[in-house]
Amino acid sequence: MPDKNRQILLRRRPKGWVTPDCFELVEAELPKPGPGEAVVRVHYLSVDPYMRGMMDDAKSYAAPAKLNEPMPGEGVGEVIAANDASLQPGQFVLGDFGWRTHGLARARDLIPIDPARAPVTAWLGPLGMIGATAWIGLMHIGQPRKGETVVVSAAAGAVGSLVGQLARDAGCRAVGIAGAAEKCGFVTGELGFDAAVDYKSDRFVDQLAAATPDGIDVYFENVGGAVFDAVLPRLNRFARVPVCGLISRYNTPEPRPIRDARPFLVNRIRYEGFICTDRMNLWPKAHEAFGRMIAEHRLVWRETVAQGIENAPAAFISMLKGGNTGKQLVKLVP
Amino acid sequence: MPDKNRQILLRRRPKGWVTPDCFELVEAELPKPGPGEAVVRVHYLSVDPYMRGMMDDAKSYAAPAKLNEPMPGEGVGEVIAANDASLQPGQFVLGDFGWRTHGLARARDLIPIDPARAPVTAWLGPLGMIGATAWIGLMHIGQPRKGETVVVSAAAGAVGSLVGQLARDAGCRAVGIAGAAEKCGFVTGELGFDAAVDYKSDRFVDQLAAATPDGIDVYFENVGGAVFDAVLPRLNRFARVPVCGLISRYNTPEPRPIRDARPFLVNRIRYEGFICTDRMNLWPKAHEAFGRMIAEHRLVWRETVAQGIENAPAAFISMLKGGNTGKQLVKLVP
Repeated sequence: MPDKNRQILLRRRPKGWVTPDCFELVEAELPKPGPGEAVVRVHYLSVDPYMRGMMDDAKSYAAPAKLNEPMPGEGVGEVIAANDASLQPGQFVLGDFGWRTHGLARARDLIPIDPARAPVTAWLGPLGMIGATAWIGLMHIGQPRKGETVVVSAAAGAVGSLVGQLARDAGCRAVGIAGAAEKCGFVTGELGFDAAVDYKSDRFVDQLAAATPDGIDVYFENVGGAVFDAVLPRLNRFARVPVCGLISRYNTPEPRPIRDARPFLVNRIRYEGFICTDRMNLWPKAHEAFGRMIAEHRLVWRETVAQGIENAPAAFISMLKGGNTGKQLVKLVP
Repeated sequence: MPDKNRQILLRRRPKGWVTPDCFELVEAELPKPGPGEAVVRVHYLSVDPYMRGMMDDAKSYAAPAKLNEPMPGEGVGEVIAANDASLQPGQFVLGDFGWRTHGLARARDLIPIDPARAPVTAWLGPLGMIGATAWIGLMHIGQPRKGETVVVSAAAGAVGSLVGQLARDAGCRAVGIAGAAEKCGFVTGELGFDAAVDYKSDRFVDQLAAATPDGIDVYFENVGGAVFDAVLPRLNRFARVPVCGLISRYNTPEPRPIRDARPFLVNRIRYEGFICTDRMNLWPKAHEAFGRMIAEHRLVWRETVAQGIENAPAAFISMLKGGNTGKQLVKLVP
């Protein structure tokens, strides 16, 4: 066991874009497990867009992160000390450890991981919150029907990658929106989407039209702003818009309008925000679906992995700017 | 029988606000019923906000009205000649006659009216499309739960009047938004809403806050624009917004934005356009609910009645500007 617990504290709240000086790396004593507790050596830390909202001291769906405490977040790791009969050292688990090399948690809050089933990082992806988010948004809110067109933004990201593959699995045309030609190539190549469009292209609006000749029936919203401005006129009658994220909006304090209300009425569009933790009852269904696709070797997911807890802030900032492809992780073990 | 059929033609499409010169009153021969048809002397003609959309040659939920033909619309009247065994002269019916003193229709398209049950104009109100719209929007899309706060705009209008009474019936706090102190008095007085707020008041935003101390769970949208700007920040988590109309928007060609997308995500709001004719299967439920309230003498609805087909354009224009309280009708018989 190493002798220190390295952690990243939130030192100041960002104004607009997150900067490295919002964070500080500090060392603390290693925790000791009390009754019913376990100490976990974190192997992978997850950094996710929703954490940007927690950095503000504002009403959001998650409580604000506290100043001068470690950033909150999920990780997967190995139990190194347990004071509970249900856990043995060496067991891999998923838990809310925060941005720390070593987490302390109640045994009952830890989710066991079976490394024989999938790489342990899958529990930070399709078999975790990311998978639940993709499935609940698309299948429960979006309700795609065979033959419909499903468009997802941030399509090369962790959630978007899964949404398109689920859509294909449901017999839909899957179209991704991403922010680089390379990402678009990944989306149509490795991920098997039917088409992908680069929102940074000057011809984005025309390309989106060409990629959706029958209009759009489900738009899985991760981005907002100018991307949604382009999507709105292409939404079909009775289209559904599960709103999972608005990453274009996270770094600007100003409101960002939806450009017109009229299409929602004329085309009877449903626009609906959701958070995966509101529907915990659906998580087993989501994980069953992805577990089956993994077992059948037909689910692709990619990870962008930074090395070392000292690089967690940079990895997080890069992810907010679209620097990642697939799930952004930070690996904390050599 | 009079010798002429007086009708109002659509002569030109409006740019912005509707003006009287969009219409022309002409006379035509009285129709004669072919096999399976009936001629109906229209007693009351309905003029409704949705007709504004039909005056434009643009994609909307209803097909555009045709130039140089009578404006489309529903009416109630008396069969004066029938060439079908199912109808007798003297029978009152509801039908799509257009803006005409005498309509020709297939007997099977006419809905029989029982004047013993309610005044015949009820079939242009709670027992017709208006009632279906109010019920489907509030009960099916809005899904109010006991103790929640329901806010409706255009609350003194035909649909809004019914929405608030349905909300009270469902055990909710009903708050109306209307465009005059007098209308607000009608809403809280005669209609029995818990509160009403005048959107033309300088203190509208504060007054809306005072009227909704627990926030808003269902907002039945008839207006859009600045009214929705004030409502959006007061929407609670998991709020539902059935979008029935956007009357503030009908007379301006410019898009009217929704001021921010973020609250929809943070508060998991569902915003959903609907048209009553998409859910014909729910009409019997709606009419059963209002029929019961009428039979129990606990439904209030008011009508603003113009006299004579020559005044239909003025009545329609006045209604678009909020001149009516309750359902705007045009009476075509002395």
